[in-house]
Parts: sequence; structure tokens; C-alpha cells
Amino acid sequence: MRTRFQQEMEELRDKLLRMGGLAELAVDRACQAYSERDLTRCQLVLENESLINIAERDIDERAFDILATQQPAAVDLRFILAVTKINSDLERVGDQAVNIAERVMDMIELPAADLPVDIPRMATAVGAMVRRALESFVDGKAELAQAVLEMDHVVDRMRDEAFIMLVRTMNERPQVTQQALDALLVARNLERVADHATNIAEDVIFWVLGADVRHHALTVAPQPARPERQEQ
Amino acid sequence: MRTRFQQEMEELRDKLLRMGGLAELAVDRACQAYSERDLTRCQLVLENESLINIAERDIDERAFDILATQQPAAVDLRFILAVTKINSDLERVGDQAVNIAERVMDMIELPAADLPVDIPRMATAVGAMVRRALESFVDGKAELAQAVLEMDHVVDRMRDEAFIMLVRTMNERPQVTQQALDALLVARNLERVADHATNIAEDVIFWVLGADVRHHALTVAPQPARPERQEQ
Repeated sequence: MRTRFQQEMEELRDKLLRMGGLAELAVDRACQAYSERDLTRCQLVLENESLINIAERDIDERAFDILATQQPAAVDLRFILAVTKINSDLERVGDQAVNIAERVMDMIELPAADLPVDIPRMATAVGAMVRRALESFVDGKAELAQAVLEMDHVVDRMRDEAFIMLVRTMNERPQVTQQALDALLVARNLERVADHATNIAEDVIFWVLGADVRHHALTVAPQPARPERQEQ
Repeated sequence: MRTRFQQEMEELRDKLLRMGGLAELAVDRACQAYSERDLTRCQLVLENESLINIAERDIDERAFDILATQQPAAVDLRFILAVTKINSDLERVGDQAVNIAERVMDMIELPAADLPVDIPRMATAVGAMVRRALESFVDGKAELAQAVLEMDHVVDRMRDEAFIMLVRTMNERPQVTQQALDALLVARNLERVADHATNIAEDVIFWVLGADVRHHALTVAPQPARPERQEQ
């Protein structure tokens, strides 16, 4: 039989996963809205932000209650601290989806422009990072989390390329400056979602291995690369 | 005589304040570097990032140790959770200072351009927000934290104005597109520092009043406005 404590811990985990699902969905929708110039999807993203905010508060309160009433130790304490940090990151992923939706709403008002940037490809890579970060949390698998840290460099490169190409576009075709700037900011927002996925992966490693991988090499096996907690 | 627990709590508070000082200094330096096109200050900001990262880890470890060994309750537990959240926000303020310094390094390579944006004025407003947020933490004053939430709207407006003016500049003077984009991204980074100050203020209110002001009106007196936890 599960104890009251085990039950509360499982509920906390499930709530965080549901919140993760909401945040992922928001980013997906915002990127689809970009591809299809779809105002309805943008509005859905804006409307659903409040659900993510409510979920964040609920999870923080549950974590606080468990800490206050159960005084968990060691691995359970690390798990709860990881949950509160992942919770903040997921809420910020939701904020990024809102930012993207707002950029898309700006773009839809302007004439469509053919731009040298593959936002859907970037969105696919970033979505995979968020999904894997959450999977690594569910399974408590540090190796999976480590893979997320490595994917971050790929997304950084995509953002740098987008940046270079879109600035060139602004110079060569001033009539689409605003659209190019909107696309550049969408690329930047996606890169920041990737950074949050990276933060989540680091928190999973902290929880699983009991080691803080932020800003320094891990000293216990398996030895991951030297990730930097980042937010661009 | 102070107990061991009180001593640990005071040390945690002092460490967080020192970290706040480092983060503030980094933003100040990055903005001075912008005004004076000063490469040396940019490099100082990049070099000092590791100090902020080390401080973040140290504070998280201390908080974990206190939770694990002292099992604090009620207001002390809320204080420690607030510290871990403020800690993350301060580290991200440091990241923003690095982003600004990198933009400035990009600008210094290009011819100086006269741009319709008052970055020093924006930096002053943002610096005041961070300072007051930290003061509200030191003094445990919810009213001071509330004032920070209200200042955030002023900075948002500055960012919006900068955005409009700089996009117009890109269109009218394509030869300074890159400089205008750099300035626009600096304005955006400053606005994000303001958002972190807002997050810190919300955490102080959570600690002091035991109420979560994120995403919903506070139901206990004094009743602040309805802030939104945000990150643009």
C-alpha cells in the first residue's frame, strides 16, 4: 500500500507532467500559427496562458505543503526542489509561446514575406528538447537529460544562422524589415524555450545524481559534458 | 544568543544579498559599456559571470542543507523557498548583463550611429527596480516590493517606444540596421532584467505575506494591483 507521502509525491509528479503538456502544446500551437498565419491559434495560446499560470501556483503550493508537513529528506527533498524549479521553467516556456503568438499576430497584419529562416524546423528541434527533458524527469534518467544538454548547441546554431540571414534581409529588402524582425524575435523566443528545456534537464540530473551540473563539470560517473545554465 | 539555525538563515540572506550586488554591478557595467563603447567593461562583465554562477550554486546548496538538516516550518520555509527562487532570478539578471555586453561588443565593431533610444535612462529605471526589489527582501517589506511591480509598466512602455523608433530607423537608414538591431536587443534585455526584478518582488511578497501574488489578485490586506509574473 502506498503511504500518504508517496501518494502526494506521485500527485506532484503528475501535476508537473500535465503542466509540461500544456506548455508544450502552447509552443506547438504558436509555431503552427506562424506557419499558417492563423490568428485563431494565436488567440488560443493567449487564452490558455492563464491555465498554465494556475497550474504553476498549484504545484508550488503542493510542494510547499509537502515540505511543511512531511519534512522529506535526501532524494525526496531534491525531487521537490527540482519540481519547483522545473515548474518555473515550464511557466516561462508558456510565456515564450505567448511572445511568439504576439509576434505572429503582428506579422499577420503585414503582407506575407518570403524569409530565409526555417522556423518549423527550429520548432521541431525545440519541441523535441522539451519533450525529452520531461521524459527524463518521468523516467528519472540522467542520460536522457544529458542528451537534451547536447541538443541545445544545435538550436543555438540555428538561432545564429537565422540572425545572420534575417539581418541581411533587412538590409537588402527594407520593405520587409518588420517581418524579418518578427521572425528574428520568434527564432530568439524558440531558442529561449530550448534554454528552459536545458534548465529542466539540469534539474533532472541534480535530482537523479544528487549533483549540481550547472556551471561546472560533474565529478561523478557518468560524466556529462560541461553545460552552462543559460538564458539568452 | 543566536541559535545555529538563526545563524545559517542570516548567512543565507547575506549570501543572496552579495549575489544581488554582483548581478546589479554586471548590469551597470554592461550599460556603461554601451554608453562609452567600452570593450574593457564588456570583458569584465563576461569574466565576472562565473562568480555569479558560483554564488548561485553555493546558495542553492546552503538552502538544501538547511532544509535537510533543520526542517524549518511556516515563515522560515517560505523564506528559504523565496531565496531559491530569487537566486535563480539573480543568476538570470547576470545572464542578461552578459547578453548586453555581447551586443555592445558587436556594436563597437561597427561605425557609431546616432539612434533614437535612451538606453541610459532605461538602465537607470531598471537598476532602481533591482535595487528596490533587493531592499524589499532585506527589510521584509511587502509595500516596497509592491512599488517594484508598478515600476515594471514604466519599463515596458520604454521598451515599446524603443521598439517603434528603432524599427523606423531600420527602414529609413538601412546603413545602420545592425546598430539599431543591437540597441533594440539591449532594450529587450533591460526589460527582461526588469521582469526578473518583478519576479523577485513577487517572491518577497510571498515570503512576507504568505500569499502568492503571481497571476491573481491578493486577497489579504494590503491589496496590491494584479501583477502578472512575466518574462518577455
